[in-house]
Amino acid sequence: MRYFLDVSYHGAAYHGWQRQANAHTVQQELEEALSKIMGQPIDVTGSGRTDTGVHAKKQMVHFDAETPMPPEQIQYKLNGILPDDISINDCRKVKAEAHARFDAQERGYHYFIHQKENPFLVGQSYFYSHPLDLAAMNEAAERLIGKQDFESFSRVKTEVNHFICEIFTARWYMENDQLIFNVRANRFLRGMVRALVGTLLEVGRGKLTVEDFVSIIAAKDRTKAGRAVPPHGLYLSEVNYSDEIYL
Amino acid sequence: MRYFLDVSYHGAAYHGWQRQANAHTVQQELEEALSKIMGQPIDVTGSGRTDTGVHAKKQMVHFDAETPMPPEQIQYKLNGILPDDISINDCRKVKAEAHARFDAQERGYHYFIHQKENPFLVGQSYFYSHPLDLAAMNEAAERLIGKQDFESFSRVKTEVNHFICEIFTARWYMENDQLIFNVRANRFLRGMVRALVGTLLEVGRGKLTVEDFVSIIAAKDRTKAGRAVPPHGLYLSEVNYSDEIYL
Repeated sequence: MRYFLDVSYHGAAYHGWQRQANAHTVQQELEEALSKIMGQPIDVTGSGRTDTGVHAKKQMVHFDAETPMPPEQIQYKLNGILPDDISINDCRKVKAEAHARFDAQERGYHYFIHQKENPFLVGQSYFYSHPLDLAAMNEAAERLIGKQDFESFSRVKTEVNHFICEIFTARWYMENDQLIFNVRANRFLRGMVRALVGTLLEVGRGKLTVEDFVSIIAAKDRTKAGRAVPPHGLYLSEVNYSDEIYL
Repeated sequence: MRYFLDVSYHGAAYHGWQRQANAHTVQQELEEALSKIMGQPIDVTGSGRTDTGVHAKKQMVHFDAETPMPPEQIQYKLNGILPDDISINDCRKVKAEAHARFDAQERGYHYFIHQKENPFLVGQSYFYSHPLDLAAMNEAAERLIGKQDFESFSRVKTEVNHFICEIFTARWYMENDQLIFNVRANRFLRGMVRALVGTLLEVGRGKLTVEDFVSIIAAKDRTKAGRAVPPHGLYLSEVNYSDEIYL
């Protein structure tokens, strides 16, 4: 029986999502907890990696178990033994061939910034006090929409075949004293959101014009883009599938 | 010259507000930072104590400095050297006799509860998963309003002369998936808000009726009230003064 999990985690304590030797990762925590509960070794597959320190409000994960268990029970038991910084929001049975990574139709991220010091946002939002021109940042962000080559915003050492992504949403807005960037796409390159945000902040500070930003996209050269912003402001917040995957 | 500071702090790292030997406190951090900036030893007086682990969104503090400095500069310099978990929201010049504790006309607290696990609320809200009857909790909370003896909700070893407080506001509401209790009064006894919340949760679970709650107030006996809830859900959020104190 195959299951999907909807998982939240606070990234501070983890070397990212993906299991690796000699590092504490979310995938490892989840596999250990699931193996204990299901009474057999369980491997999980996530919708994608998140980097060291990046958070997830909604990471989607699939796994297979030989002996079935009601999904509510899996969720309840997992939340009982997982550390406080990982939570299971939902568990559902899916079709045998449903795949958390390959079947994901779109993914969404939010990047949170606060401009006034706030002890309750430490580690959960990027403190950036320079004044910003939100209208200019949104004008530049609009130029990201569509199917384009985003090599300028990709980490240099990466294993992908191509750099084409289709961006559906890219906009900045204010909410509860935080400045938030929401970006949705069919796929993302490694380090892409943090490089986009870093470059858009330079537009917001007036160091780059909207036209400069468009040229940076066209250059397909990572050295042209701005510095990546820190991971603790970034949240994987959305992964969408067709309803047909669910049983 | 006397100044008022409006201060926020995340309480997790501190043994409360008040300076004490061999313990790390917010008052101590603030006095050390101010003494460095003002070039003279500075003592500060808070509007009241907060216990170990309790947060403040708005703690008000006064101090005197021989050599005056523009308030914006004090705020800026303090935020530069204070740790991330303490922030100065405002600094203002006040009359020489203005007193952060004695001139406070009312104080307000918020207690935050979340009922579904959430990695981003750990340490900032109390996770309490039992179903609760919000209407019953508000019916009981209403009976707190007015000038009454609240000895039933006071820590047993305390140094006060009397237990009379005048409560202006006491209500529960939902906001962003959190259940929040707001209480405002002319003064609070030690441990009072956490004992009130703990007892109101018993009403919410049906273990106490509203009439039981009223009898507990009348009993003036701490052993009759519920268990205090943990400090990490509690925020000092409001301290109000007459505008006449400001220069």
